[in-house]
Amino acid sequence: MRTGVWLVGARGSVATTSIVGALALRAGLTGPTGCVTELPELRGPALPSFADLVFGGHDPVATPLAKRADALAAAGVLPARLVAALGAELAAVDHEVRPAPADGSQADRAAAVVADLTAFRDRHRLDRVVVVNVSATEPAAPPHPAHTDPDALAAALAGPDEVLPASSLYAYAAFTAGCPYVDFTPSTGARLPALETLAARHGLPYAGHDGKTGETLVKSVLAPMFAMRHLTVRSWSGANLLGGGDGANLADPDANAAKVRSKDRLLGEILGYVPQGHTRIDYVEDLGDFKTAWDLVTFAGFLGTPMRMEFTWHGCDSALAAPLVLDLARLTAAAHAAGRRGPLADLAFFFKDPLAAPTHSLAEQWDRLARFTAALHAEHGGAA
Amino acid sequence: MRTGVWLVGARGSVATTSIVGALALRAGLTGPTGCVTELPELRGPALPSFADLVFGGHDPVATPLAKRADALAAAGVLPARLVAALGAELAAVDHEVRPAPADGSQADRAAAVVADLTAFRDRHRLDRVVVVNVSATEPAAPPHPAHTDPDALAAALAGPDEVLPASSLYAYAAFTAGCPYVDFTPSTGARLPALETLAARHGLPYAGHDGKTGETLVKSVLAPMFAMRHLTVRSWSGANLLGGGDGANLADPDANAAKVRSKDRLLGEILGYVPQGHTRIDYVEDLGDFKTAWDLVTFAGFLGTPMRMEFTWHGCDSALAAPLVLDLARLTAAAHAAGRRGPLADLAFFFKDPLAAPTHSLAEQWDRLARFTAALHAEHGGAA
Amino acid sequence: MRTGVWLVGARGSVATTSIVGALALRAGLTGPTGCVTELPELRGPALPSFADLVFGGHDPVATPLAKRADALAAAGVLPARLVAALGAELAAVDHEVRPAPADGSQADRAAAVVADLTAFRDRHRLDRVVVVNVSATEPAAPPHPAHTDPDALAAALAGPDEVLPASSLYAYAAFTAGCPYVDFTPSTGARLPALETLAARHGLPYAGHDGKTGETLVKSVLAPMFAMRHLTVRSWSGANLLGGGDGANLADPDANAAKVRSKDRLLGEILGYVPQGHTRIDYVEDLGDFKTAWDLVTFAGFLGTPMRMEFTWHGCDSALAAPLVLDLARLTAAAHAAGRRGPLADLAFFFKDPLAAPTHSLAEQWDRLARFTAALHAEHGGAA
Amino acid sequence: MRTGVWLVGARGSVATTSIVGALALRAGLTGPTGCVTELPELRGPALPSFADLVFGGHDPVATPLAKRADALAAAGVLPARLVAALGAELAAVDHEVRPAPADGSQADRAAAVVADLTAFRDRHRLDRVVVVNVSATEPAAPPHPAHTDPDALAAALAGPDEVLPASSLYAYAAFTAGCPYVDFTPSTGARLPALETLAARHGLPYAGHDGKTGETLVKSVLAPMFAMRHLTVRSWSGANLLGGGDGANLADPDANAAKVRSKDRLLGEILGYVPQGHTRIDYVEDLGDFKTAWDLVTFAGFLGTPMRMEFTWHGCDSALAAPLVLDLARLTAAAHAAGRRGPLADLAFFFKDPLAAPTHSLAEQWDRLARFTAALHAEHGGAA
Repeated sequence: MRTGVWLVGARGSVATTSIVGALALRAGLTGPTGCVTELPELRGPALPSFADLVFGGHDPVATPLAKRADALAAAGVLPARLVAALGAELAAVDHEVRPAPADGSQADRAAAVVADLTAFRDRHRLDRVVVVNVSATEPAAPPHPAHTDPDALAAALAGPDEVLPASSLYAYAAFTAGCPYVDFTPSTGARLPALETLAARHGLPYAGHDGKTGETLVKSVLAPMFAMRHLTVRSWSGANLLGGGDGANLADPDANAAKVRSKDRLLGEILGYVPQGHTRIDYVEDLGDFKTAWDLVTFAGFLGTPMRMEFTWHGCDSALAAPLVLDLARLTAAAHAAGRRGPLADLAFFFKDPLAAPTHSLAEQWDRLARFTAALHAEHGGAA
Repeated sequence: MRTGVWLVGARGSVATTSIVGALALRAGLTGPTGCVTELPELRGPALPSFADLVFGGHDPVATPLAKRADALAAAGVLPARLVAALGAELAAVDHEVRPAPADGSQADRAAAVVADLTAFRDRHRLDRVVVVNVSATEPAAPPHPAHTDPDALAAALAGPDEVLPASSLYAYAAFTAGCPYVDFTPSTGARLPALETLAARHGLPYAGHDGKTGETLVKSVLAPMFAMRHLTVRSWSGANLLGGGDGANLADPDANAAKVRSKDRLLGEILGYVPQGHTRIDYVEDLGDFKTAWDLVTFAGFLGTPMRMEFTWHGCDSALAAPLVLDLARLTAAAHAAGRRGPLADLAFFFKDPLAAPTHSLAEQWDRLARFTAALHAEHGGAA
Repeated sequence: MRTGVWLVGARGSVATTSIVGALALRAGLTGPTGCVTELPELRGPALPSFADLVFGGHDPVATPLAKRADALAAAGVLPARLVAALGAELAAVDHEVRPAPADGSQADRAAAVVADLTAFRDRHRLDRVVVVNVSATEPAAPPHPAHTDPDALAAALAGPDEVLPASSLYAYAAFTAGCPYVDFTPSTGARLPALETLAARHGLPYAGHDGKTGETLVKSVLAPMFAMRHLTVRSWSGANLLGGGDGANLADPDANAAKVRSKDRLLGEILGYVPQGHTRIDYVEDLGDFKTAWDLVTFAGFLGTPMRMEFTWHGCDSALAAPLVLDLARLTAAAHAAGRRGPLADLAFFFKDPLAAPTHSLAEQWDRLARFTAALHAEHGGAA
Repeated sequence: MRTGVWLVGARGSVATTSIVGALALRAGLTGPTGCVTELPELRGPALPSFADLVFGGHDPVATPLAKRADALAAAGVLPARLVAALGAELAAVDHEVRPAPADGSQADRAAAVVADLTAFRDRHRLDRVVVVNVSATEPAAPPHPAHTDPDALAAALAGPDEVLPASSLYAYAAFTAGCPYVDFTPSTGARLPALETLAARHGLPYAGHDGKTGETLVKSVLAPMFAMRHLTVRSWSGANLLGGGDGANLADPDANAAKVRSKDRLLGEILGYVPQGHTRIDYVEDLGDFKTAWDLVTFAGFLGTPMRMEFTWHGCDSALAAPLVLDLARLTAAAHAAGRRGPLADLAFFFKDPLAAPTHSLAEQWDRLARFTAALHAEHGGAA
């Protein structure tokens, strides 16, 4: 099952780490640490192997992947020996990464993306291509009347306005080209009625939003712990310090607000009430590709006794995100092959702000993911 | 369903907080924060109500409960207004707390406990009495040949030797009197073949060990998180600082070793391997009834990238333990009423070192507990 | 040396704690923990004793001090037994706390303050009155042409405009009444050329700004540590979570900005360069009178090796501030008695943003304070 | 002023980092971050320049320095580019590192060390050689009657017993060869009456003990902060987790005890009382050359209000220690040149457990160091 992975933002840190990792796994140079789909509970025949994955993508910048990988090695994100060993393979992927279409109306640009996706699929004789957005977080998009209907949308895109944010234009192009779409960012992506209808028309699955890689991952197990113990969370405050490209981008207040909103949904859903406290995101260039999050939770126990918990998470976002990008590409490809369509609620495990969210508790998300995967493997076995 | 709760260590901080809390709940003076059995998922007719609970117990010290409660109020563990409002009720419970039997052979002392339990049950016309050990942690017990067989044990107890540690003598007396037994401490309790056989002979359920109230509670959700994300935990180190009676007792190296052993089982079971690192327990008198735990976890992500997480837990052990003591008394009474016998593996949710442990993951333990409770309620309804 | 202490914001948490503490010290009910002027290195005959202090002040609210003290006792800031024991004394102070003048032009209000100060001094036959501002943080004041000259200022105050922020109007009134002025807040206070000239005309000393009670106190010893070790601080980020009245007030963005500016001056001065990072202040009501600050410092060592330090400070601002208010009143009174005038740079030890700041290093500030105090004692001895 | 630096443990992490750093500074490949003697307040003509330093030493292992440096580069302690650039220079130093003498009586081994030191001094025409102990921490040495007198010691060393621990045998040899001695470890070193007399006879200065590089450095500024603010420290607990060779060595309980004793002296001296709490050291291999320390301080403020502070220090011991080794070599050489003799109390700034400790406060130690250095520069200028 040859599967294309088309990365929007293909030269960014997450994409580069995903590509280097997949090539290293294929070459037997590393193990699958961090790849959820390689756990015994999820592994199985329905998923394309790492060797089945073919990478391509768009990026406005032109820095060769090998150079990006060298920078990540210098920053402690990638082992230098892997980057050195994979020079030829990285150069090959480089040929499949094109400049993001920038000319003409949004309809023109969407058509250019469709053409790139189709050519990529044909050139490599791929069974399917999964489009994965790993580009920078956008500000929340302004509403537009054409967002509710695919035909009105097609008409509006041909005009002079910027009708869709970039992430949604990619979802539009992906669906038009018959490709599933995954949004690893908090951007709008496929979350517009017109795009949901378009996906349904083409019988396509899609997934998102915002890969759950750090502070929110921890919250998704701690908040259920407080709930299961019937402890009252009085306040939950978070300070997120991050460097790297994502940090600089989030220094923009609008992108910051979109990100914080995505992070804040979880507590209310799990606890049944919204505790006091704020989540802050600040840019600290010196942290590079790492992120330090500090959270303070105050809670009340039996008879109101006040107590508290703090945690500090010091993680490398690219190293946490990249294996999940591979997991999502594999799972979404398998879901597509099995005829699943619409929002993949069973992939909530991977996201801060999951589509059609059945739950924000990591343990419940895990149970759903395991059942979902088992079903795919069973159907695949039955089909074979 | 009138239910006796016989507390071994009835004047300690945990017991006093449990008693004050149950009386306050019965009087409508407080809410059930921290009581797991009052969550919508677990609540139901099979459980005795708080008003059904009647308290008694043994303790070597004679300080009145009201005086112990005043001290806990001064330490910020109990609200002073509750203690003031419950003076008469506390004095009534005081009459049911006796000095721990201290004279004669261990057989004599066990007989005295049996007599106390029987008289308590008769005096209050109770349907059953659940014995709950909340006394100080014992050192690990030396082995004895009579530990394997109840008849040999009965004979040996009549001799001059200290054949059983105190916690196990209480389990022996409880079973002999037809009472279920719960051990909230890491002590030996019912964990001897002779006692397991004795419980089976009397058709009694029992539960334990070591209430999960702080650092281990957090570990039981964080360790599954690392496992579910296929991240490799390289080391997990813990520093536990605690004051209070339990802290002073744990300054004894043997009791400390027993406690640490109880805390250390979890990681290997959940992760499938034992990471580097140690758990330390130190006594810091100034912390009073509170405990501060600090844990450092180092872990490796995709391609080996090193990352780390720290947490600090600042909790009041008595306030965390007391509602669980009430939960365990209610659940064990209901299990007994429903004819359950042997180790109650479905109560693993409450313990650091659960009997017949099916799993150490809090989320899985929760699922088992919810199914167990639902079955009790269903049977109860059917029986009614 | 009978000394009046006139508190602006006399019913706030800091003022109430200062008054209760001074009364308790006078009655021998508590020790001088937290009072710097009671350390052997600083103690001496030039300072008024606690029994010499007479309290009065202004506050817009009318809640009796005893009620405010009860609330602080319930919040764990004051021992309930002290509050109970000092009822009569607190009621006596209550008579000296008046509503803040609110009618007429700013000149009218200043005159009312002058009248209150003068009457207070006369009524109690005080040698002097020190005015201490412990009211809520103001937003930064808009500039006004009359800020540069006392005569222009007097004229402008008689007009309809709000020429001065409240803190500066108090400084104006204090100086006019011949009283030294201390600003424990980051507000403008005496920091206007017109007011500096006015203080000089009256030969008065003044001190400020912004009591150094928590995060900044720690920074003032850690930053010199990095500097003395020639380690390069790459970033210093701080998250300050606080409840209480000060927290609610700082939720106002303008007051917040004034406070952050006050906190941010220190690093550049001590290190000689400004590291990356931000200081955030957020309101979390549940923290009550306590404040939790978390700081992350990243630094580079020999050959550039990256390292990091974190600290969490969990302090009670009122309990930290109140003894310093007493220290400042005693020291400023002694300075006035000894003929000191102008900004008291030697009191920098007490402030986040000290006037005429010779240094931000706590150890150097301590040395200056000790020399200053020794000189006062020596002169006092000579005079006696 | 050509100065030899003879490192006991010359192939360890601290020594290797010191050598690489000095060579890199000499070659202009790096800056003096972390070198205290390069601060404007201390810099001056009395100190030998980095180019004046010539390295040699003893080590039981034979791994080439370049290989040790490669391992440190892989661990993130040294920049790989520096190690690559300094291959030839490291190989040259390798020729001056000999196996530690291991044969014969202790007198024989001391004589072999003396011979090595003398030959090194002659071969390189050095003005003097400073011996610096950077080998692993020893257990506390058993007492011996010959420890009190140099002549009795000389006689005892010729016998079959191990009269002196290794660190003291090196001090003996250094003094015999006319060399100043610095102990960067908590081992016994020169701290025996016989050795103090011997140093006096030869007119030699010496310094120690135990380089202050992490948790204790922070304590030496925080403890004075609490003292200066008259806050009562109720408890101070520390957990030190370290990997690397030092960590493995400290897993030995005797070495651990020696280290903890060295760390524990500070609080009592600075505060004037000993707070509750313990310092723990644990080995966690995964931390490699880094060390993570967590400290919890509980303290009482005005009227007894309980408060708390935590800090986490994550530092690289070699990177923190190496520049101090260079500082100590330069300062001790200058002190020797200026005729200083006996224990150098003015170097307390560098040590956890300083000889003839005038104070443990970092700020006071800094003042003494600055005066000491200024005097050396002044005398040097006068002499020139």
